[in-house]
Amino acid sequence: MVEWLERVDTGDPGRIHAEGMTARVALEQARDEVAAFFGARSREVVFTSGATESIAAAAWGGRQRGPHSVLPATEHSAVTRWSIDPSTVIGVTEDGLVDPAEVGAAVRPDTGVVHCQMVNHETGVQQPVGEVLAAVDGRALVHVDAAQAAGRLPISFTAAGIDLMSISAHKLGGPTGVGALLVRRGLRIDPLLVGGDQERARRAGMENVAGALGFAAACGALADSAESEAALQRALSDQLIAWADDAEGVEVIGSREQRAPHIVCLGITGVEPQPVLLGLDALGISVHSGSSCSSEAFEPSPVLAAMDVDAHHSLRVSFGWSNTAEDVERLIAALQRVLGELRSLRT
Amino acid sequence: MVEWLERVDTGDPGRIHAEGMTARVALEQARDEVAAFFGARSREVVFTSGATESIAAAAWGGRQRGPHSVLPATEHSAVTRWSIDPSTVIGVTEDGLVDPAEVGAAVRPDTGVVHCQMVNHETGVQQPVGEVLAAVDGRALVHVDAAQAAGRLPISFTAAGIDLMSISAHKLGGPTGVGALLVRRGLRIDPLLVGGDQERARRAGMENVAGALGFAAACGALADSAESEAALQRALSDQLIAWADDAEGVEVIGSREQRAPHIVCLGITGVEPQPVLLGLDALGISVHSGSSCSSEAFEPSPVLAAMDVDAHHSLRVSFGWSNTAEDVERLIAALQRVLGELRSLRT
Repeated sequence: MVEWLERVDTGDPGRIHAEGMTARVALEQARDEVAAFFGARSREVVFTSGATESIAAAAWGGRQRGPHSVLPATEHSAVTRWSIDPSTVIGVTEDGLVDPAEVGAAVRPDTGVVHCQMVNHETGVQQPVGEVLAAVDGRALVHVDAAQAAGRLPISFTAAGIDLMSISAHKLGGPTGVGALLVRRGLRIDPLLVGGDQERARRAGMENVAGALGFAAACGALADSAESEAALQRALSDQLIAWADDAEGVEVIGSREQRAPHIVCLGITGVEPQPVLLGLDALGISVHSGSSCSSEAFEPSPVLAAMDVDAHHSLRVSFGWSNTAEDVERLIAALQRVLGELRSLRT
Repeated sequence: MVEWLERVDTGDPGRIHAEGMTARVALEQARDEVAAFFGARSREVVFTSGATESIAAAAWGGRQRGPHSVLPATEHSAVTRWSIDPSTVIGVTEDGLVDPAEVGAAVRPDTGVVHCQMVNHETGVQQPVGEVLAAVDGRALVHVDAAQAAGRLPISFTAAGIDLMSISAHKLGGPTGVGALLVRRGLRIDPLLVGGDQERARRAGMENVAGALGFAAACGALADSAESEAALQRALSDQLIAWADDAEGVEVIGSREQRAPHIVCLGITGVEPQPVLLGLDALGISVHSGSSCSSEAFEPSPVLAAMDVDAHHSLRVSFGWSNTAEDVERLIAALQRVLGELRSLRT
């Protein structure tokens, strides 16, 4: 990205002058690399500004095909806020899992799109996407929000038979402000952003070539290491879960079997999440409350409410490529200290 | 941007940990600088992925207020493609200018938004935005696509009383993939991208902090030089226009009085634009045909058709900060050579 930003001989990749062609070549190389990482064809990759836009585009395009949509209750609010009536919301188990048969049974003749998140953004729970695809069986488009899964679980877009898939580059080590909507070959949906023929007329707007290069670089860096990173992150998660199982007033939320390697959602009894976050931050540890995707509002989590667990008192711990077993030990020690202090204040 | 991308101590600006707060401070400083450049309040700046998204958000938000929209016939296709029925399209003169009284008369009780581009993307013609605002007189929202005007003409968003304004950073020397929708203080429109409270719940999605910093840097660099750059570009345009007035088979399209300093649209008789572009490129000169915003399609220009001029044979020449009078001399010499060769092939 830095190298690209410092060049002066590049231009609009939609133009046929030399500067434009230079940019076009770079953009298509980035597309090839992103496609390869997700087991997709290059032409199936539509670059966007991130998963939020990709999800909106999938929901928008899906609704043009049929007004009705189907979605699990634990989808990200980027999905639920697009899924206005008519829609059918499918409940989940206390483990956060959806029943594929129930999803399939909800598909109607006027269903345009079925949403199914691959990995939940608060709990790390992994939905049975393959079984949902089989249950829908082509009667509607299936859109998979893979923002949390990308880079953490192996994904083979084409082989899985997914219609639409949303990804953010920053979730897998790339830059913010860029992502992709993967669109199955042969599928045409009405674009959300219009006014130019960029991205084969599937997403208008001047291409963010630097961002695409950063996205591709992240995919390239992960191509060899994703599997070993995931194994490490799963070990760190297991380490934290083992502690939580023995700790008083701490519980692990969501399925232990069907979950991504890098997220652990902890329910904390008797203390508010915000002072816990601040206390951990003071000790050099950055975690997040599961209760909201942006910290401006500390509202109860609709995801946890749908699982029928305490929606007000959760911590979302996520692990990255640089974390170690010592980091988890530090986190556990810090959590014990902060929780102890906060609880002593209450008595 | 480069400095930001190379830092490792930054995070999600929506989080309350230290890395998040660092990013938040940088983002808000960028917002202040962009706001200052456009004569707006900081809170009026909503960062987006670029003008295409900003326009879609303005059109979307406007339609929630009232289904009907009003627009000049020469708006960018990012606007026209959102302005589906019911809408009223206002014709323009052969000079490309809209009659503000006609726009005002088209406003109905169910009009949500009136679009009025500040500077046309193909001809450089400058619409009388102030008079359109006066004619609409608060009976509908007024959205101004200022993508081509930004950095070339002085803009005072707040003083002008504009409701919504779309900008792309790359049009004024910033990076691609970032822009803004300016939203008048107190105005609330339904957001297009949802699922997070970023940008004060006006645009969901992880913030592109590096992009915002690049946008702000471009605004900062232009703050002192925009006026002198515009004067230079107007002189270069006048130089090209003076040649065109004497050249056989070349005409200047659009108003000579009401136009931005940096764009000249030339009508070329008797040759196709594509070989002209390729011939100029071979001589090191990058221009564009007015017939399409992306080169994948060489279709007749709806802008020029609306002006009732030849919509198939135009060249759009635009000048940037680094251009000189010698560049214009080179362009003129190259045009004479390429046009001469192409015309000799036809006879």
